[in-house]
Amino acid sequence: MNATGVIVEYNPFHNGHAFHLEQAKKVSGADTVIAVMSGNFLQRGEPALVSKWKRAEMALKFGADILFELPYQFAVQQADIFASGAVSILEAAGCRSLCFGSESGNMESFHQTLSFLEEHNPVYQERVRLHLDSGFSYPKATSMAFLDLRPEDELVDLSKPNNILGFQYLRAASTQKSSMKLFTIARKSAGYHDEQFSSDSIASATSIRKALFSENGEIEYIRQYVPESTYQGLLQYREEFGGFHYWEQYWPFLKYRLVHLQPEELRGIYEMEEGLEHRFLAAAIQADSFQQFMEKIKTKRYTWTRLQRACIHILTNTKKTDMPNKPIKAKYLRLLGMSKNGREYLNRHKSDLQLPLISRISSQAVQQLHLDIKASRVYAMAIDGELQRTLLQKEFKQPPIMIN
Amino acid sequence: MNATGVIVEYNPFHNGHAFHLEQAKKVSGADTVIAVMSGNFLQRGEPALVSKWKRAEMALKFGADILFELPYQFAVQQADIFASGAVSILEAAGCRSLCFGSESGNMESFHQTLSFLEEHNPVYQERVRLHLDSGFSYPKATSMAFLDLRPEDELVDLSKPNNILGFQYLRAASTQKSSMKLFTIARKSAGYHDEQFSSDSIASATSIRKALFSENGEIEYIRQYVPESTYQGLLQYREEFGGFHYWEQYWPFLKYRLVHLQPEELRGIYEMEEGLEHRFLAAAIQADSFQQFMEKIKTKRYTWTRLQRACIHILTNTKKTDMPNKPIKAKYLRLLGMSKNGREYLNRHKSDLQLPLISRISSQAVQQLHLDIKASRVYAMAIDGELQRTLLQKEFKQPPIMIN
Repeated sequence: MNATGVIVEYNPFHNGHAFHLEQAKKVSGADTVIAVMSGNFLQRGEPALVSKWKRAEMALKFGADILFELPYQFAVQQADIFASGAVSILEAAGCRSLCFGSESGNMESFHQTLSFLEEHNPVYQERVRLHLDSGFSYPKATSMAFLDLRPEDELVDLSKPNNILGFQYLRAASTQKSSMKLFTIARKSAGYHDEQFSSDSIASATSIRKALFSENGEIEYIRQYVPESTYQGLLQYREEFGGFHYWEQYWPFLKYRLVHLQPEELRGIYEMEEGLEHRFLAAAIQADSFQQFMEKIKTKRYTWTRLQRACIHILTNTKKTDMPNKPIKAKYLRLLGMSKNGREYLNRHKSDLQLPLISRISSQAVQQLHLDIKASRVYAMAIDGELQRTLLQKEFKQPPIMIN
Repeated sequence: MNATGVIVEYNPFHNGHAFHLEQAKKVSGADTVIAVMSGNFLQRGEPALVSKWKRAEMALKFGADILFELPYQFAVQQADIFASGAVSILEAAGCRSLCFGSESGNMESFHQTLSFLEEHNPVYQERVRLHLDSGFSYPKATSMAFLDLRPEDELVDLSKPNNILGFQYLRAASTQKSSMKLFTIARKSAGYHDEQFSSDSIASATSIRKALFSENGEIEYIRQYVPESTYQGLLQYREEFGGFHYWEQYWPFLKYRLVHLQPEELRGIYEMEEGLEHRFLAAAIQADSFQQFMEKIKTKRYTWTRLQRACIHILTNTKKTDMPNKPIKAKYLRLLGMSKNGREYLNRHKSDLQLPLISRISSQAVQQLHLDIKASRVYAMAIDGELQRTLLQKEFKQPPIMIN
């Protein structure tokens, strides 16, 4: 069997994702799609709308064959480490190709961009340093440095979010000497960060979430932008757990931590840069909501996303010593779910997998997965009462989702 | 001026306390009463009904002249360390005497009991060990060991809670070679743990709290058992902060900590004995309330109080390395409030104080008081919204309460 890989968050799974899956099979000639998906907390430093189990189920119902969890170590991370974990999982799962969406849509440009940057690396790094020293955030500094080098037109515009991620996938695949062939698919209609609906059937996940949380947010309103299975899945989750997850639900816990953590303890948390800790501690006392808190700590030097990730790490008490601080490979394949076709693929390729496959948490896996378990436990705290217990126990009780 | 000292929690200040203050002056011949009072968390491992500032104010309005805070290091502690901190503060403040309430009411018996136990110490310790090995809690084991020695009738009954505390005060004063003369006053009517009202005007703090939190708990109901100033003070606090503090308000935060703490982190918390951590972690996942949690972790070996204290330490992230594990002396006098008479006392005796007097938190005091600051911050988390900010900032903004 021939599998292609995709790297996703599915927050939530929508028509654009469905289109991407369809195209992925087409361009790669694969018969199986393996998705590596962030768990309950996402790269932008946010809780997922609904749990990873529900998101896996929604994806399996609409075209994905196998869902692996991108471990917390890689999921709540800057782009290069995120990419290295995701690419290594797809490679270990035996994917022959990797398909990613991008604004560019031209794979050749990506390869040229990688070569160009490798060639000009010393000058590039110098420019990045210069912009960082002027107080710009890291993503802004790299994007400015790239423009400084006056690349020719054919190169990829590395100020666009999906181009950046795609470029990181290519670089990770290159560094890891991956055997996968990379394809890129031009994203349809909606930009990654678009907040407005701009087409009849395609909308960004951002605009869908925005609609779900808007004041008179009727779930009905998003129906045209998502497969019916997503729509039903979201309805069920809301029914079962009383709503969707969002940052403000975790604010009391984050604040509680911040009002009693010592500066030196805070400094030990991953992504807390020197000096940021006093800013965080002072803002926590003053703020009545997460939004207020974020506005108080935001500066030019750090992106909103970066600061939100630091907040997630405080919430989960994830220390510098718990996380890789440079791109590394994943160490396990955590199976969240599979279709009938996906099951067949795993049966056939079981012995070719290059990493241990974890489908249930055994006692020896507890240590290895402790960041993921912790993240799921903290994620559950947004829910009240007995339902919270259901979510708290899911990590140990939930078998992989099976869709026929 | 001649000051006598009392050791209190005032949760809340009631007629029995007023009687005790009156008697304390009488038996000691003092013109000034200095009270050392637990802060926002109490010896039984509970949040105080209202903040230490409000409790100080209520006490000052009804007979106390100076209120010092018993630091968290001593307040949320087993009886011997609690006593050592409190006694050392009163001694350092220049008290000539210390008056404590007891079931016994006979000071001579206390002295005899101390001599008796010192004399029989080896046998006593052996008996304590024996009962501990049979699985009894420490307080139960000491009380049984005492009875095993078949003391004569004149000795103090060390199974009674106020007798135990009084005995610890005497022992601390003796160990510290305190110059204070000790007096004991028989407690009127209400037993320490009595839950029922048993007289027209005297009720235990336990029964008053119970009435305040009972289902149709009308604050009016407690009016006859407390001075009018307490009654008004409680009304004001409830008005200002929306209610009184109780354990269940802190349960979400305790649970949040317990669901994501690693066993080895939990083992580092003060009063977490080896083996208890797995019990705590498993119970946290299962329990939907603090009461349920406590029932799940309770065993014969540990008293309810002891386990509640461990919970407070988890909540405040107080580590074994933060706390004295044997009786030591306090290092500062934290002034919560004073009457006109108290101010005069402090003016006159300023140079005689044997410890630094802290009336406002300066930047160098922050480190020294960090456990108290932390405790106050965590205490504030029970309150919602903007009022929470008021409580969070109190530790730095509140000057000592002054009553004329």
